[in-house]
Amino acid sequence: MNFSLSKSLEILEGTPCVLIAMLQNLSPEWTSNNEGGQTWSVYDIIGHLIHGERTDWIPRAEIILSEKPNKKFEPFDRLVQFEESKGMSLRQLLDEFKRLRKKNLEYLQSKKLTDINLQEKGIHPAFGEVTLSQLLSTWLYMTLIIFPKSHV
Amino acid sequence: MNFSLSKSLEILEGTPCVLIAMLQNLSPEWTSNNEGGQTWSVYDIIGHLIHGERTDWIPRAEIILSEKPNKKFEPFDRLVQFEESKGMSLRQLLDEFKRLRKKNLEYLQSKKLTDINLQEKGIHPAFGEVTLSQLLSTWLYMTLIIFPKSHV
Repeated sequence: MNFSLSKSLEILEGTPCVLIAMLQNLSPEWTSNNEGGQTWSVYDIIGHLIHGERTDWIPRAEIILSEKPNKKFEPFDRLVQFEESKGMSLRQLLDEFKRLRKKNLEYLQSKKLTDINLQEKGIHPAFGEVTLSQLLSTWLYMTLIIFPKSHV
Repeated sequence: MNFSLSKSLEILEGTPCVLIAMLQNLSPEWTSNNEGGQTWSVYDIIGHLIHGERTDWIPRAEIILSEKPNKKFEPFDRLVQFEESKGMSLRQLLDEFKRLRKKNLEYLQSKKLTDINLQEKGIHPAFGEVTLSQLLSTWLYMTLIIFPKSHV
């Protein structure tokens, strides 16, 4: 399936409610423990998703769509949630994720993006030139990995 | 984490509502298409889950817990959903999965399983002797693969 903004929004919009349905009644043994070593717990992952909403997808889309000559993205800190989530319950994190995702999707829809916009580019600190379409596809991919896979 | 029946039930009970939250508002492009080749669509996977509720987990637990001398499980047909789901909408499949899962968990809870019960054995057609604890862990594993993973 090729990238479709409207189809992507269906998934991105639903994600917070899916995560809440999945996690709200679980014991901390499920959500606070990681799988050993450097792996992340569910709690860590929700903090990571929040940081993505704050600093990754939409701030980078704004850079791509801006008139600025410098279209370089800020590097993304993959470990900052270990500090940022401190003192917050899992439910607080889920609610914050839901609030931010909603705000970000409202922004995206307000831009009424054209096919030409989707081909505009920014500079990723590791990968170089990336289009808005690639950025939004990656946002979607990071959500799709929670879906049932055909290797059931 | 070692196998815990009560912790496992938390996940198994919530799964139908998680899948409904995940899938109820999606376009058929997301749920009817597979990922190419012999992979399964989401629709196929829900049919597979239904067949598991009908013929795998609880029927096998019943064999293990029975007084029968022959504790061999019936082989499980991994492809039968391509016939069984015919004519049903995704929503009908989800509702059927929810109904069956609820019934199966009610049965399991009614058995008031002891640690000794969990060590009782049946004969898997491919793997040989398996304990009830191993059977229920596998049921749980097949559900856990939809959870967020630490490779986000």
